Amino acid sequence: MTGSHFSLAQLFADGLPAPAPRWTGFAKYNFIGGHNAPERIPSEGLAAAAGAALRREGASLALYHANGPQGLLALREVVASKLGARGIKADADEVLITSGSGQGIDLVNRLFLNRGDSIIIEEFTYAGALTKLARLGVKAIGAPLDSEGLEIEPLARILANLKREGVTPKFIYTIPTIQNPTGSILPRQRREALLALSREYGVLLFEDECYADLTFEEGAPSALYALDKSRVVHIGSFSKTLSPALRLGYIVAEWEVLSRLIALKRETDSGTGAIDQMAAAEYLGRNFDAHVKGLTGALRDKLATMEEAVAREFGSAVEMWRPKGGIFLWLKFPDGFDVRRLQGPAEKRGIVFNPGPEWAAAGEAAKSYMRLCFAYPSEEEIREGVAALAEVSFAETGIPQLSANIGRAGRSL
Amino acid sequence: MTGSHFSLAQLFADGLPAPAPRWTGFAKYNFIGGHNAPERIPSEGLAAAAGAALRREGASLALYHANGPQGLLALREVVASKLGARGIKADADEVLITSGSGQGIDLVNRLFLNRGDSIIIEEFTYAGALTKLARLGVKAIGAPLDSEGLEIEPLARILANLKREGVTPKFIYTIPTIQNPTGSILPRQRREALLALSREYGVLLFEDECYADLTFEEGAPSALYALDKSRVVHIGSFSKTLSPALRLGYIVAEWEVLSRLIALKRETDSGTGAIDQMAAAEYLGRNFDAHVKGLTGALRDKLATMEEAVAREFGSAVEMWRPKGGIFLWLKFPDGFDVRRLQGPAEKRGIVFNPGPEWAAAGEAAKSYMRLCFAYPSEEEIREGVAALAEVSFAETGIPQLSANIGRAGRSL
Repeated sequence: MTGSHFSLAQLFADGLPAPAPRWTGFAKYNFIGGHNAPERIPSEGLAAAAGAALRREGASLALYHANGPQGLLALREVVASKLGARGIKADADEVLITSGSGQGIDLVNRLFLNRGDSIIIEEFTYAGALTKLARLGVKAIGAPLDSEGLEIEPLARILANLKREGVTPKFIYTIPTIQNPTGSILPRQRREALLALSREYGVLLFEDECYADLTFEEGAPSALYALDKSRVVHIGSFSKTLSPALRLGYIVAEWEVLSRLIALKRETDSGTGAIDQMAAAEYLGRNFDAHVKGLTGALRDKLATMEEAVAREFGSAVEMWRPKGGIFLWLKFPDGFDVRRLQGPAEKRGIVFNPGPEWAAAGEAAKSYMRLCFAYPSEEEIREGVAALAEVSFAETGIPQLSANIGRAGRSL
Repeated sequence: MTGSHFSLAQLFADGLPAPAPRWTGFAKYNFIGGHNAPERIPSEGLAAAAGAALRREGASLALYHANGPQGLLALREVVASKLGARGIKADADEVLITSGSGQGIDLVNRLFLNRGDSIIIEEFTYAGALTKLARLGVKAIGAPLDSEGLEIEPLARILANLKREGVTPKFIYTIPTIQNPTGSILPRQRREALLALSREYGVLLFEDECYADLTFEEGAPSALYALDKSRVVHIGSFSKTLSPALRLGYIVAEWEVLSRLIALKRETDSGTGAIDQMAAAEYLGRNFDAHVKGLTGALRDKLATMEEAVAREFGSAVEMWRPKGGIFLWLKFPDGFDVRRLQGPAEKRGIVFNPGPEWAAAGEAAKSYMRLCFAYPSEEEIREGVAALAEVSFAETGIPQLSANIGRAGRSL
């Protein structure tokens, strides 16, 4: 082989994802992903917190992790404390700080899953969880959701059928408190039923509480982990309550499981970013409740704005799953409608949204669903963006025919 | 299966690492790992930098990554600028920020390696690289080092032999500038020869410059990447120049390669911690040269202290590979000596070190080698710890017989 015509691409491994495109910035009407409300980032509070922590314990940055591989003790204490509101009694030793809850999912997957295994997942769920499972060669079986979350009877039938086929799914991955993308909260009785199924079928419950701190009303039932630690691994995040850019999540589990996850994290990275941890611990240690209360209020206002805009612009053409917290609105277009037809034209108008198939175990079958994040855009951008999306939709599909009870065709003239 | 006697360990996947032990703190004489000099952490500078960046652009934390998936633009500009001193002309678009250079290695491995592939690695090398390769089922073939780094003739023979066997190694993983653990700097002529071998055999050069900013003398030859971008992927880190706790590394590569690495990073995490990036960029953007100069001076003093202590306590019983920079001293005990015999007794005295076999492609065959990190301990701890290690060694093995030219057996009476 000579130097001419040589390309390193000749040496690439198998099964790579497509190359990333050049970065060109964000869309004007940004309804995708898990971005947060920029006006609620406590910049001044974080600046003071980072400064105080660095001045007090900056020399500890000479070590990979001053408090051991589980992460900064002060941040684990914040986690343990806030879990109290979820009914969980845990101390800092039961917590592993992760580089975002995505790493939490990777670690739990690695601990329990072999290629060819099966797991059960909510029919609509976090896209990242689905892509990670697909990469691992794991079969993800969708279980139906209603407006309160996982439906117990169909889930029991799925487990019974799998047992007849000789299949024991390794876990049920569930987002019981502010489900992603539907925003539901699983009632206490269903939580108990879920644990009963876990006992009956020897299956782990993998509980993702990424959004659980962002409920609009108080009184959500206790976390599954609070009800039975021996059958549940619990993960959560500060991405939603503080900032997605900080990459701070956590896993809570009993030591038999946690000691394995710590060992697996050490194979993955050499710890989670220290100043991120210090700033978050110093700030949230004093301000968690007040900060989350302010953020949740702002999110609730933005949701109201988006629900109004969707109702005004799309009328009866879409159904909304009204979320009980969080940052997403899950929409259902008429059966047969494919939201992906809108993506290209919408992007030309500066509008981006998440198409249903990426958020669904059945993929293609969810083509009439759409997820809109209402946290990042301003209320004005929400109104303008939803209106523009309805215009795009009408132009492409003839739906919605009505806008604010006025014929759209007429309005377009 | 009933609820009784149920353990989640029944559900664990295959091939797990051993569980982590409970964290019990650091050894008194801490000569392991890549820890840094605590007295050189610029706590005040980082506090001011984090505060300024957060007050100016805190709202950007509402996004996963305000400047796209390659990482904070200001930090990529710091990287591009400092690479000038390594002879590399690159702009910020050629840089991907990684969560430590360990993630850089993981991403490059994932891009190029299939299970069963072969690569060439320096006979003594970074332990993390070896364990990552073993996990991937990749064969790592050791190439000999001398006091200037990779020896070209033996490397050429290895490549020729592999070619005869029909094996094309995917890459040569090399740490040419401040080799880990030997501390050597590869001369310019050998760099050219390495590139010629890359051209002749169609093999990528994977250049790890983790320690290259910490040379004790100026005038190290340009990086391999500076000599031929089309055949080299370059990684580096701020772990050594600033802090290992910040988890900030980088990859520099042409777009054909970088666009793939960006896509692979997105499968791994959702970005690198933002406040870590902001604080580092803000501080190092103004202070990189001055900070590194101060740090390197301190390291040089600590190395001198350690070399004196080793010479005094071990005399002719050990050979030192005198490093030209960095944070490690690589020691050779007499053939047949197994440094692992000292680990248990040393730990009881509060002394920890890295045994050679973990830092060697041939593993077991390097049992008479030891790596000592001199960056973290104080000069007093270095003197005390090395003296205590010699005592342990003599008690366990009868070596060294002399200490400061006095019979050790006599001194012990």
